[in-house]
Formats: sequence, C-alpha cells, structure tokens
Amino acid sequence: MEDSRNVRVGIVGATGYGGGELVRLLARHPSVEIAGLAARGRDDEPIAGAHPHLARTGHLIGAELPDQLDAVFMGLPHGVAAGLVPELVERGVTVIDLGPDFRLRSPADYPRWYRFDHPRPDLLERAVYALPELHRAELAALRDSDVRIVASPGCYSTTSILSLAPLARAGLLGDVVVDAKSGVSGAGREAKAEMMFSEVNESVKAYGVGGHRHVAEIEQELALLCGAPIEPVDFLPHLIPMTRGILAACHVRPTRPTDQAELDTLYADFYRDERFVEVVDAPPATKHVLGSNVFRVHVRWDERTGRILALGVLDNLVKGAAGQAVQALNVVFGLPEEEGLEQLPLAP
Amino acid sequence: MEDSRNVRVGIVGATGYGGGELVRLLARHPSVEIAGLAARGRDDEPIAGAHPHLARTGHLIGAELPDQLDAVFMGLPHGVAAGLVPELVERGVTVIDLGPDFRLRSPADYPRWYRFDHPRPDLLERAVYALPELHRAELAALRDSDVRIVASPGCYSTTSILSLAPLARAGLLGDVVVDAKSGVSGAGREAKAEMMFSEVNESVKAYGVGGHRHVAEIEQELALLCGAPIEPVDFLPHLIPMTRGILAACHVRPTRPTDQAELDTLYADFYRDERFVEVVDAPPATKHVLGSNVFRVHVRWDERTGRILALGVLDNLVKGAAGQAVQALNVVFGLPEEEGLEQLPLAP
Amino acid sequence: MEDSRNVRVGIVGATGYGGGELVRLLARHPSVEIAGLAARGRDDEPIAGAHPHLARTGHLIGAELPDQLDAVFMGLPHGVAAGLVPELVERGVTVIDLGPDFRLRSPADYPRWYRFDHPRPDLLERAVYALPELHRAELAALRDSDVRIVASPGCYSTTSILSLAPLARAGLLGDVVVDAKSGVSGAGREAKAEMMFSEVNESVKAYGVGGHRHVAEIEQELALLCGAPIEPVDFLPHLIPMTRGILAACHVRPTRPTDQAELDTLYADFYRDERFVEVVDAPPATKHVLGSNVFRVHVRWDERTGRILALGVLDNLVKGAAGQAVQALNVVFGLPEEEGLEQLPLAP
Amino acid sequence: MEDSRNVRVGIVGATGYGGGELVRLLARHPSVEIAGLAARGRDDEPIAGAHPHLARTGHLIGAELPDQLDAVFMGLPHGVAAGLVPELVERGVTVIDLGPDFRLRSPADYPRWYRFDHPRPDLLERAVYALPELHRAELAALRDSDVRIVASPGCYSTTSILSLAPLARAGLLGDVVVDAKSGVSGAGREAKAEMMFSEVNESVKAYGVGGHRHVAEIEQELALLCGAPIEPVDFLPHLIPMTRGILAACHVRPTRPTDQAELDTLYADFYRDERFVEVVDAPPATKHVLGSNVFRVHVRWDERTGRILALGVLDNLVKGAAGQAVQALNVVFGLPEEEGLEQLPLAP
Repeated sequence: MEDSRNVRVGIVGATGYGGGELVRLLARHPSVEIAGLAARGRDDEPIAGAHPHLARTGHLIGAELPDQLDAVFMGLPHGVAAGLVPELVERGVTVIDLGPDFRLRSPADYPRWYRFDHPRPDLLERAVYALPELHRAELAALRDSDVRIVASPGCYSTTSILSLAPLARAGLLGDVVVDAKSGVSGAGREAKAEMMFSEVNESVKAYGVGGHRHVAEIEQELALLCGAPIEPVDFLPHLIPMTRGILAACHVRPTRPTDQAELDTLYADFYRDERFVEVVDAPPATKHVLGSNVFRVHVRWDERTGRILALGVLDNLVKGAAGQAVQALNVVFGLPEEEGLEQLPLAP
Repeated sequence: MEDSRNVRVGIVGATGYGGGELVRLLARHPSVEIAGLAARGRDDEPIAGAHPHLARTGHLIGAELPDQLDAVFMGLPHGVAAGLVPELVERGVTVIDLGPDFRLRSPADYPRWYRFDHPRPDLLERAVYALPELHRAELAALRDSDVRIVASPGCYSTTSILSLAPLARAGLLGDVVVDAKSGVSGAGREAKAEMMFSEVNESVKAYGVGGHRHVAEIEQELALLCGAPIEPVDFLPHLIPMTRGILAACHVRPTRPTDQAELDTLYADFYRDERFVEVVDAPPATKHVLGSNVFRVHVRWDERTGRILALGVLDNLVKGAAGQAVQALNVVFGLPEEEGLEQLPLAP
Repeated sequence: MEDSRNVRVGIVGATGYGGGELVRLLARHPSVEIAGLAARGRDDEPIAGAHPHLARTGHLIGAELPDQLDAVFMGLPHGVAAGLVPELVERGVTVIDLGPDFRLRSPADYPRWYRFDHPRPDLLERAVYALPELHRAELAALRDSDVRIVASPGCYSTTSILSLAPLARAGLLGDVVVDAKSGVSGAGREAKAEMMFSEVNESVKAYGVGGHRHVAEIEQELALLCGAPIEPVDFLPHLIPMTRGILAACHVRPTRPTDQAELDTLYADFYRDERFVEVVDAPPATKHVLGSNVFRVHVRWDERTGRILALGVLDNLVKGAAGQAVQALNVVFGLPEEEGLEQLPLAP
Repeated sequence: MEDSRNVRVGIVGATGYGGGELVRLLARHPSVEIAGLAARGRDDEPIAGAHPHLARTGHLIGAELPDQLDAVFMGLPHGVAAGLVPELVERGVTVIDLGPDFRLRSPADYPRWYRFDHPRPDLLERAVYALPELHRAELAALRDSDVRIVASPGCYSTTSILSLAPLARAGLLGDVVVDAKSGVSGAGREAKAEMMFSEVNESVKAYGVGGHRHVAEIEQELALLCGAPIEPVDFLPHLIPMTRGILAACHVRPTRPTDQAELDTLYADFYRDERFVEVVDAPPATKHVLGSNVFRVHVRWDERTGRILALGVLDNLVKGAAGQAVQALNVVFGLPEEEGLEQLPLAP
C-alpha cells in the first residue's frame, strides 16, 4: 500500500477552468500530493492570480513541472498534448489527458474531427478511454503496463454515453437524437466576444450545427457497447446562460417495443454498483449535481410516440472533466474510487 | 377607414405577464384605445401595483370591463375563458383568447389534454387558430362573421409550427423530434416554489415529459399543413435560467432525401412576404428577437445523419403571446399588420 | 419646421453596444434619418454582423461616414473623439459625443482623470454637458451657435446627478456616499477575460476603488447645482450579474435636519415637468425602466440615522447613453423631446 | 476525547436552505452524526423530496427529532425558536439557533426590531453571540455551562461586523455607511411572488429601507468592540440577481486620519490566526468564497475623500449561516475548528 499513499501529481494547463477544478479536488485528496502546477508563461506565481478562490492552497504556477512525478494531468488545446505525452510516458509517468488527443481509437478520426494527423497512432491503441463505468478493468490494468495513457472523456460525451449505455448494451438503441444543453464554462476560459456576459445572459442558442467533435467519441463508445456499428448520432449542443452543468436529452427510437418496467430494471441493473451514478425517478436538474462528481439519469418510455427518453445531467467541470480524471487516477493507482470525490452537490 | 381608427379594447387577466405585455404594446398602438383592464379582486387600482414598469400609462385595473368594447383580450387559466367567451361573442365583441380554450378543433382533445369537457363545441369550429402566417385569410374573414373568436396560439406551438411549416407543406415531414428550451416567464406569474430564483438560476431541466399540452396544437396544425394525419411529435420542453425566449430545435427525418439548396428555397419562398418572420443563415439566439414580434428560423441539412434541423426562436411573451394577439387583432380589424409591433429587439 | 423634419445623422463607433442602441432608437425616430454608420475596419458590411438583432434595419457599416450630415454621434474610447471632433464642428456638424472628451469644464481634469492632455481646451468651454434636465436651455441655444458640441453624460454620472440634484439645488447636500451597482454592458463590448459569463455570473464585486472617472462629472455638476465647491463624493461602483441597468444608492448627511414631507415636495417640484423622470414612492428596481429612457428616483428621510437616502435607477444603455443622446439631439434640433423615445420599459 | 468523537445532532427546519446546507456540511463531518432531521408536516420522508441534491445521504425528514441528542440546530422563523429552546436547554442539549431569537442582549430590542416580546430574557443573557472570531472563549466556556445556547449570527451581520471589527477595536470607527448586496437565497425558500426568477433576474433593488433587522446585531457587536455606544449605522441591503453571496461595502469616516499602512497592519494583526478569514489586497468577489466557510476582506484608505473603505464577502448560506453554525459547534464541543469546513470555494 505504501506506494499508493502518496501519489505525486503535476498539472499542465493549470490556469484553465479544468486546471482549477483539479486543484480544488486534489488539494483535499488524502492520497495525492500536488507537486507542481504549470502553465505557459507563468513564473512561479501564486495560484491566486489565476484562481483567486484557491489562494489558500498556497500553490505556485510555474512554466515547468518538477521531475519526480507519478502522474501528470494535461489540460491543453487539442493537438498539443499529443506532442508532449510520449516523452512523459517513456519516463514512466501516468498521463491523464483531459483533452481529446488520445480518446479516439482510429487515427483517421483525428484529421476528420480535429484537423491534425496524429503523431503517434501506436500510442492511441494503448490509451484507455477513461470512463470508469465502462472501462474500469482496462484502467486498473494500466497499473501493470509500461504505457499509461488515460484519455479522459469529453463532457458532452460522458453525459451522452452514460445516458445511453444501458440501452446500447441491451441492443435497444435505434435511431438517436441527443439534444444537449451546456453551461458556458465548457467553452474554456480564454476571452471570446461571444462568451461575454452580456452576450450569453438571457439568451440561448444552438452551435456546432452539423457535427460537434464530441460526436466521434459518442459514436465510438456506443458502437463498442452495441458490439456493432451504429447509425450516426444526431447530436446538437446548446449554450445556455449558466456557468456549469450539462443536460443531455436523448430521444431514442428503440429497436423493438419496450416498456417502463423493462427500462427501470435495465438502468438499475447497469448502474447498481456505481458510486457516482444515480438513477432517479423524475427529470433531473443540473443543479442537483453541481460541484459534485455525480451523474444522474432518468429514463422514460413514451407510449404515445413509441420513443425512449433518457435525460442525463452532470457538472461539466467535475464528472465531465476534473472529477472524472481524478476518479480514473484513483482506479489506476488502486485507490478507493471515491477518494477525494465525496463532496455533496451545492444547491441552491 | 373611420371604423378602423379607434378600436376600443379591454384586457381580462391584466395582472399577468401576458396582460402586462398587451398593455406595453397597445399603449403605443396608433389605432387602438385601451378602454379597460380587469383582473380578479382588483378595484380600480393603478397599474403600477401589478406592473411597476407601466406606471406612466396611467391605467387602472378594475374587477370588470366597461361595456362598449370592440375587442377583448383574455389571459386566463384554461377552462375559464370557455365559460366567459360565449356571452361576449353574442354581444358582438371580438374575443382574442390567449389561452387554449378555443385552439383545438376537436372537442375530444379538451378532456384528453386539459381535463375539462368543452362547454361549447359549436363555437370551437367557428374559432380561428390565430397564427396569421398560416390563417390570415380566415382571420380577415372574421370581420364579416357574427362569431369572432380568435384563438391565439401557445408559445411553444408558435415556435414549433413556424419552424416546421415549410417542411410540412412540402411533404417533407417524416419523423419529428422537437426539443424546446424556454425562459421561465412562460410559466406565468403566480408564486411557485419551483420558479423561485434560487431554484431556477444556474440550472436546466426538462419537464412535461410524456406530453406537454402544446403538442396537441402542434400536431393539429402540422397535420393541416401536410393535408394528412401525421405521426405523433416527440416534443420535449426545458426550463432554462432566463426570463424570456423560446428556442425550438426541430430534428426531422425527411420523407425523402433533400439538400441545403432545396431547403433554403423552401423557407425563403414560404416566408417571403411575412413581415415578422426572418429566415437567417446561422443558428439564431433568442436574444436576437427579445422584446419584438419577430420569429427567426434557420434550417440546415445534415448530410451525415440524413436529417433536417430547423431552429426557431421567438420571445414567448411577444410573438409567443401578446404580440401575436395584437397581430391577429390588426388582421381582423383591417389594420396594417405591423401596427404597434414595430419595436426592434432589445440587445444585449 | 421643414428643416427639423429630416435630421440626417451618422454614428461613429457603430459596432459597440452604444452604437447598437442608437440604431435601435433612431431607426424608429420619425424625424431622423440614419445616413451612415461607421466603425474601424468595416467595409460596408450588413449591420447583422455586429448586431444580429438589428438585421431588419438593413443598414450597412462602413469605414467612413458620408459627407452631408446634420449630426454625428460618436461612441469612441476616451481621447479619440477629442481629435476627431474639431474638424466635424468646423464643417458645421452637430457632434453628440457619448464619450467623456467634452464633459469636463476644466482642462486640468483630463490629465488627472483620463491621462491625456486635452488638445482643444477652447472647445471644452463651448461644449454643453448634455443632461437635458439640467442644461436644456444651453442645449437649445446650440441651435444658434457655430460650435455645436453635445457632451453626453456618463451612465453612472446621470444616475448619481439626477438622484442628488434636488438636494444640491436646495442646499441640503452635506457628506455624500454614492454606492452604485451596474450591469456589465457598461463595460463595453470588447472581449475581456473578467467580463466572460463564467466570471461575472453568480458574483458581485466592487471596482474602481479609490476613484472611478465618472466622479469628476458628478462633482462638477453637483457643485454647479450647489453654486459652490463641494466635498469630494465617495463614489463606489459595483459590477453585478446582469446586462443592463444601474442603481445608485446615495447616502446623504444633510446640511440641516429635514423630514420626509420636505423631501417629497422637493423632488416633486424639481422634476414636475420632466418627461423622462419619475419620482416614485417605493424603492425602484432597474427592471422597472429596462429598455426605456426613464430615470426613476425614490427619496427617503431616515430619522434613526439622520440621513437622506436617494435611490435612482436607469438603463445604462438608454437614459445612461444612447437614449439620453437622442433626447439631447431632439432638444438641439427643436424636435419634441420625447420623439423616438416613447418605448415603455420591458418587463419582466 | 472520547465524548467529542461522536456528536449526535438534530436539525429542526431541515427543509429550508439553511437546513440543506447543514446536512451538506455535517454529512461529511468526521466527528458528527446526523441523528435526526425535522420539519413541520413531514412524516419520515426521504430528504430527496426537499433537497434533491442530497438524495445520496439517505436521510429521512420527520415531524420530530429523536430524544438522545447532544446538539440541535434550529432554522426557524423569528419568535418560534424562543418558545422551543428552553425545554431543550433544560434537557442538557446544546442549542445552535440560526435565527435571531437569542442574538440580541437587550430584551427591549425584540419588540423594537422583531415585534415580539421575548419570553425568556433570563436566557438571553446566557446565550453567546456565535461569531467565533469575536467570541471564541465564551463559546468554549459553554462546555462547562448548564445553559448552552449558541446564537448564530445573521448573514448581513457577519459580513458587516467582520468587515469593521478591526476598525472598531482600534477606535477608528466614525460615521459608518454599510451598503450591502445579497443573493436571494438569504430570503428563504418559501414561495413569494417577488422572489420568482422572472422578477429577480436582470434587476437590482434596495429593500429594508429605513432599517433592516440585522442592524440591531451589527450595532450591538460594534459597540462591544468599541467599548462604547456608537452612532447608528446606516445599513442598506440590496437584492441582486444571484443565488448565494453577500458583499458589504463599508464606507467609514475614521475618528482620526489614518493611512494604508496602518490599515494593512491592523487587519493583518486582527485576523492573523483566523482559519476562515482572508485579508486580501484587491477587491474581493463573492464568487471567490462560494460554497466555503471563508470570509474575505479588503481594506482601503481613500486619501481623496478621507474615508476608509472595507469590502467584505462571504457565502450567506455557509459563513453567513450553516458553516458558521458548524464552526461554533466545533468550538463548543472542543473539536478542531475547521473540521467539516475545509471545502475550497467553487469557481467559476
């Protein structure tokens, strides 16, 4: 146990929202030591400059991480991590990438969805898509691997996949429309005119029309669960005037008639032992999970339309990003999966 | 022209949000005189009590309307207007009902969707569903009718129907999912725990799962446009943390393959002469129409999924309620359709 | 009257929030023609690019204004208008500057508060501080002047000055604390990290601690009203999570004891004939004036503390900027003062 | 130590916002056991009904608390706790009252500020005003008392008193204006028309003009710190469109000239050993402390006006209510003061 007591971690991209959440969670994680925080252009500056709310952690943000680290979290724009990860991996560091650079199994998906050619397709197949609810065993197996790349899922992907996984596994997944609503923190922290308060407040709009990048992950994982290729998912994201939270409304035409009782059993069974998944019997609000690592899902059979509706919610910065990455670290390092992640949601 | 210069109107239910919007619009309408405002329990009280922002109009709200009126707007809970309208109609008053009591053609729909038996099915068939873009001629014909009931559409219905109408008319409407997002003013003004700021703010949730009442109108009108019965529409509304605005994302599986050029032409042609409809070439935000009587729609063919996406936005209290009712009044009374409705949207 | 029917105006800085509001108001102004819109780097582009909500006005935004103009509105960063105005003035154009470059009478105030030396102190003394409620006659007199510079007041200044003017005129103004709260649109439209939705939402903070620039105008105008120098005003602005609106809470230690009746009379008399000022008998909310050119004020004597509290509210983009500028234009050009400004507030 | 390991607590008024926060904090407190939750009219119902976000705690809410309790938290309307506390106290239970019934030392203040006569003035003088930063020793001394009443301070009071305490202690407190801004959760959870989202959103207003009740506590504690009676405090609260957070801007005319260095030293010294107070060198935002038990304060000397500005922020439901009550419980029961309160703030 000795080696798992003190996991020394570093965070690259520590000034972003994801980086801040990682610090918030890891600073209170009993088995993890934050050994270094890095961001471009920073020179050992107090964390309060980037994250005033985290002043009391006393951390500094520098340009580089220290050498002796067990794990590194990376919160970087797509295409950047792909270039930095190989060296870390070769030094035996566990890399937990919060970006998309190691999420897709097929190298061909990178030029298609992210407009870059993946520099290391060989590492792609070694990486694990780190949705612990679906890939827990593979994550745990990384412990004995010489290549440890944890590809932490996207926020929309987590919401959509966990909402639909029981249906996919059961072979019920027919035609799928995922209509998702997100708070704006998912768009990152860089100053953009369209993300200014006065533009976002008191308004709602769809974006990414014709194909948001997360759809690649969603289809990849649903196909794995189905055990067969699936029809393209009609995925539409919206920006709504709130900071955190994603709700995915998944409208599913099932492959065969079903009923409420079957769906209830399906979801209850699928998620029975999951510490961070709550199957609920009423439509969930994002506020019910704010600030926590909880994913909530509600499923409903609509006799009138012959469709299934699955509604999933999470906090995009926790279960959709930093919290899920910590959950994966716990699994990889053999720690209790809920360690450092037991905060209850904050409401109202 | 003389008779159309001064339309004397009254408003029943003047203390609600819809009532306030009617006053805001009509107080500046050059051909309309607000002759009376009524609400239960009010005794000629200054309007500022209910609507502080309208203090300068100087109106009073009383328990009853005066007698000599050309038209009465009714903003009442469902089932109530049905009992009051007949007497007004018999007195020759034009009734513009903002509630659902005269929107549905089939009497059987009332017990099904609204849980009351309609007291006057004979009047139902005389009422006109007052979406001027679809029923302008019928509205104008009311001028010569002895029964003048204008059934002003619901806010979700207007958004959904106008988003889909060109597809329905063209026979392209296959399987339909309408995923709608609304500001909370649509839920009315009565104090409800779940509508308190602390509950709504920084959260999103779906509601009306399994069948919101507006779906009845939506299916009725789409079937009329198709000229044939249609499959049940999968309609799902959401409450989002803003006051005004509705966005409907309509995911449509067309009855045959199409392309962007055909859709562009279809929408441009359908709405060419419409004063209050704007077909736009990018996803619209509700803020683009806030406070105005404008409906905006964007249509997109998604080659990857084989689906059409139609995105429609409006201000639920204007084009979704009071503004549309004034537009209908203009048509019925032979006034220029845009009179009193030319305010530009308010942004940011 | 002929010459006042069609005032041809141009707007420089048309892509900002103030520019958008000017277009919103002027496009419906019966005596004004928008002859040109200009902003740096624009090349006759549809206004919808900068202001999607104004698409239907059909205007274009170019790099330069046309030549034959009666008036030009300028919405530019401080120090820029000062360089452009002289040439316009010499061409006989009425300049209505929404920035601070001609608001302060004393040239010495420019290096002190705005860190630039004013290039044309001679023009400073010819400019009129365009709060019509205080300087109506001087504005009207510009008609016969060969130098017509209208210095439209700042948003905080308008709120503070109008809240306190009756007390200042009556010699009651002792020690003053103005604690102001503003929506964020006042900070302009440029992308700034601290104005992103996720930073502003669900938070409040003070800024400009130790001296916001608007205090210079406030003290200048209050001293004029008092007819004597005044003690420095303790002015503190806050940013609150809303788009529009300013509330100024003015805590005043009077120069002598007073009572509620005296204050009521004072304010009623002072604002009796003002079309855009409403003295109200309960604390006003910014929402009561949203989107309108109305300023509301409530005054209260607090026997317990021996202080007067004056609470003023306005929409910072209308009565605090564009609306007030249009009001001034009306006065200067001899139009009815309320023309184009009669929209009622938008609530909820 | 044995007896302090497992403090068995109950919560009366568990369905309110304060009750929910207590459960959120205490459910993760290592030395506290939640033994019972009570609220009027509840019959052992799952907590998810009142607090969906707390479903996973598994608690039930009943009509009554169990008998064997070490401490009871009370979150009740004023005047109600005063009637219930005596019996609990006589049974040896430590009562932590989050309402005002035991905060004021002088019985005469109850009819004046709360319009009820206090039924037990004898208990008033035994109660401790539970601001640990000011009354830690008295709280600790309750351990050996037979009457243990912990009067947890109000949210506005905590913000104002902690912002001003160093000045009061140093004899610098002259004329004081406290202009406070609060999120709406402080107004409680009961459905009220004026707290509906559509009314609060995109608006700001002052309320409690002429004397908010919290001013009684503020003056009482400041006078204690000064060691002498003080002038009435001009306290004005505002409602702003956010859920949580209070900012108090305290404008102080000092009793003698001072400077920034003296103020910096004063605040640093006063709060040197305080675990939950952060003296910061820039104006704080409420978001910097959201969800945490931290109070942040910034002090500034304004040479121009000769005034001191102290800006304090906290989360009204944590350091302003439930967190502070838990902090007091820790002191009374000899637990580490920060136990159960170490969550970092949640931002953005």
